[in-house]
Amino acid sequence: MSERSANKEFEIKSVTPRAKDYAQWYNDLVLKSGLADYSAVRGCMVIKPYGYALWENIQRQLDQMFKETGHQNAYFPLFVPKSFLEKEEGHAEGFAKECAVVTHYRLKNDPQHKGKLMVDPEAKLEEELVVRPTSEAVIWNTFKSWIRSYRDLPLLINQWANIVRWEMRTRLFLRTTEFLWQEGHTAHATREEAIEEARRMLHVYADFAEHWLALPVLKGVKTAAERFAGAEDTYCIEVLVQDGKAIQAGTSHFLGQNFAKAFDVTFTNRNNQQEYVWATSWGVSTRLIGTIIMAHGDDHGLILPPRVAPIQLVIIPIARSSQQLEQISQVAHRLKSELTAHQIRVRVDDDPQQKPGWKFTEYELRGVPLRIAIGPRDLEQNTVELARRDTLTKEIVPMEGLSTRIQTLLDDIHHNMYRRVLQFREAHTTYVQSYDEFKKVLTEKGGFIVAHWDGTTETELAIKEETKATIRCIPLDQQPVPGKCIYSGKPSHLQAWFAIAY
Amino acid sequence: MSERSANKEFEIKSVTPRAKDYAQWYNDLVLKSGLADYSAVRGCMVIKPYGYALWENIQRQLDQMFKETGHQNAYFPLFVPKSFLEKEEGHAEGFAKECAVVTHYRLKNDPQHKGKLMVDPEAKLEEELVVRPTSEAVIWNTFKSWIRSYRDLPLLINQWANIVRWEMRTRLFLRTTEFLWQEGHTAHATREEAIEEARRMLHVYADFAEHWLALPVLKGVKTAAERFAGAEDTYCIEVLVQDGKAIQAGTSHFLGQNFAKAFDVTFTNRNNQQEYVWATSWGVSTRLIGTIIMAHGDDHGLILPPRVAPIQLVIIPIARSSQQLEQISQVAHRLKSELTAHQIRVRVDDDPQQKPGWKFTEYELRGVPLRIAIGPRDLEQNTVELARRDTLTKEIVPMEGLSTRIQTLLDDIHHNMYRRVLQFREAHTTYVQSYDEFKKVLTEKGGFIVAHWDGTTETELAIKEETKATIRCIPLDQQPVPGKCIYSGKPSHLQAWFAIAY
Repeated sequence: MSERSANKEFEIKSVTPRAKDYAQWYNDLVLKSGLADYSAVRGCMVIKPYGYALWENIQRQLDQMFKETGHQNAYFPLFVPKSFLEKEEGHAEGFAKECAVVTHYRLKNDPQHKGKLMVDPEAKLEEELVVRPTSEAVIWNTFKSWIRSYRDLPLLINQWANIVRWEMRTRLFLRTTEFLWQEGHTAHATREEAIEEARRMLHVYADFAEHWLALPVLKGVKTAAERFAGAEDTYCIEVLVQDGKAIQAGTSHFLGQNFAKAFDVTFTNRNNQQEYVWATSWGVSTRLIGTIIMAHGDDHGLILPPRVAPIQLVIIPIARSSQQLEQISQVAHRLKSELTAHQIRVRVDDDPQQKPGWKFTEYELRGVPLRIAIGPRDLEQNTVELARRDTLTKEIVPMEGLSTRIQTLLDDIHHNMYRRVLQFREAHTTYVQSYDEFKKVLTEKGGFIVAHWDGTTETELAIKEETKATIRCIPLDQQPVPGKCIYSGKPSHLQAWFAIAY
Repeated sequence: MSERSANKEFEIKSVTPRAKDYAQWYNDLVLKSGLADYSAVRGCMVIKPYGYALWENIQRQLDQMFKETGHQNAYFPLFVPKSFLEKEEGHAEGFAKECAVVTHYRLKNDPQHKGKLMVDPEAKLEEELVVRPTSEAVIWNTFKSWIRSYRDLPLLINQWANIVRWEMRTRLFLRTTEFLWQEGHTAHATREEAIEEARRMLHVYADFAEHWLALPVLKGVKTAAERFAGAEDTYCIEVLVQDGKAIQAGTSHFLGQNFAKAFDVTFTNRNNQQEYVWATSWGVSTRLIGTIIMAHGDDHGLILPPRVAPIQLVIIPIARSSQQLEQISQVAHRLKSELTAHQIRVRVDDDPQQKPGWKFTEYELRGVPLRIAIGPRDLEQNTVELARRDTLTKEIVPMEGLSTRIQTLLDDIHHNMYRRVLQFREAHTTYVQSYDEFKKVLTEKGGFIVAHWDGTTETELAIKEETKATIRCIPLDQQPVPGKCIYSGKPSHLQAWFAIAY
């Protein structure tokens, strides 16, 4: 048991505690757990196998939920001609300032420097291409030829793709120059149907976050100042993380007829009249991984939600001789086969070159929900030591009936993780009546601050300017409550949820 | 039955026959079946839902085969710094001339033209970025920090990604500016192990092509002139299609230590010495879809391999009244449930607004392997009409035992399709003894031409210059046969497989 207790020190050394430096703690978790790595390209990251396996599990489940709600996948070009971006004014305003621009289509040998390449000035594009910061423009230009009549509607398309936004300040997973995402783009015959779709997908995101990522989310609608560039309404899910800041984890936009008008997409309705089409778009990205890390992790490392964890259970043999190791490994692999047959994702780590203590630390850091250790005495008594990552508790349990016990435990861990984040949010949601109180809570406690707001962008921006807090959303289920704006003192029936956001 | 026979005319109208214009036939199949569409961006295509569903089935199976052979997925940046491309000389030579170059990271409002955007000259990148034409450079720059000792090897990574090569002449699926692919990148301690890996993955590709796409492939090794830029050896699978040309459907490269040296990737071996790492890379792309179309299609449209077809069976009710339609649709949907439970991918098309004849033509065009028609008499007699897409034959069969019959038939169709392509290849493979014979066969018959070649690039390029035929490969299983080069007359022990290639 000496190795197990010796771990403690190593763990504390390896991950910066949250209380000491939250930003460094986050980076330590991403880098040391093997989720991702910095790359040589500014602001772009390398998603390592462990991180990508997590993304694959997220993708698989979301993709199924999209298909169950009638959507089909397709793929559209990476490049957006500059003139397409210009077509929707708000959209251009929102994305033109942070995009990668392709201006040439060839390099050539540099005659001045042997072995070096230079841009070939003769290969200049007539029209510059932007690497997609989102695909509304390219997709609506295509929809124009796909939509003729009401019989072609609704058109329910999703795309899994990479996206580039030239962000000035980047942070692994949460804000990177290139990221992976899905973007839904739908076309409808009526305003009502499009709004219904935008809201439906918000609920799909919320269900996914709650049931698969153990993340309670706040569902709401953005203010005008925080809307997607080109949208009439932006719905969002927001998660409060452990430093009291909010993360926008997914958005769903009702685009009105803006893109249909910009790209002249009309349809013949049932009365044989031409009408502009109504649109939505919605997306979640690899940012979800950053949200998982920040919401669930602790000072030992990641705590991954069991339903998307690449490894749900690690089995570690504890042996004093190579003969013992062989014996125990056999049992471990047999156990793995049994559990795998029950759709549990298991790894056996019987690498003789690493000590069990090192492995315990390693899999704690990597956030594996459950750990089984099997020692010589377990072999005699037909037991295993079963440890939970979320609570760091362990118990000796019989080998018999393990698969049922583990399935139950994985569910337990999911619910416990969900409850913890929810309790944190509830403890860090404060209703305030005055601007002084607002500022005091923001500085001393953080979290969501709920306050009456007069509904003007002016007030919203003034508060943002003075405190850095933004309105994360107006919750969907909010009942109007009369009151006075904390900033302007004007009458207000809206309570906005403010926070400092990532 | 009148509608069924009336189809004929419509079909002939809708798809250009192969004999009339093979290139147009191909484009008709891609566009009219709904696989893909042209986009507004030069050389880039839109992969439509039906085409993307086919790609998803290809991906799913390949991904499983990669994981079964020990590979893990990861994701690397879209952008390659120009200086990275320069590092491996052959690689730079091969890719610099056809790449999209990002030079700026911002657009701004054009002060001269209201509502227009222009490249912001102040947002010029210090070093230009190339949109990846392949990822060796970015990945080997990363591997440098992942590999320290022999214990880190082999490193077996795969990436699913989009790729951009600025091709001057494009063709939907077969050669597009942007395409989707997977690229495997592996690192090994020894030369032998890397060669073994490159060959293993070639066999994985060949198995996949044969067992999933019903495509017999020629497995071989490329000549120096046809090698991947930066490789020591390129292995390939080649498919002969119906106009007698060859398509390179997948490649696997033994990269030697070229990239390890270019990016200084060394490891400490078991004897505590530093050595350069050995590398492979391998890829298949959306080009596989073009290969499927060209190898299997006929003048009625696509014929999709059953094991990857998005729809394996379509059920079409044939009714004379809406009451009949409702009755038959009920049976159709019940049948669909039964078959879906047996993992058969089924669609019921009971749209009352399209006639059965139109639907027959449509699903033939879309290459759905099996079609069931149910009419009022079938309902009485508990039968269905079952039609095969590959042979265009049909028969009346009992409703009972349909799922077994269909599973058997799908296998039959797979084998029949495979056999047809193989027979075509065998009938279009000609062994020649002289250059005159070579040219005559090439002009009059096409296909693979097998000929003695002296092994020099000079001869190979002269033949290419004069005839456009290239050496597709030297088959892997070839036994040395003494002879004389058909071009130079020099002694030769190699028989090269020539063809005109896509």
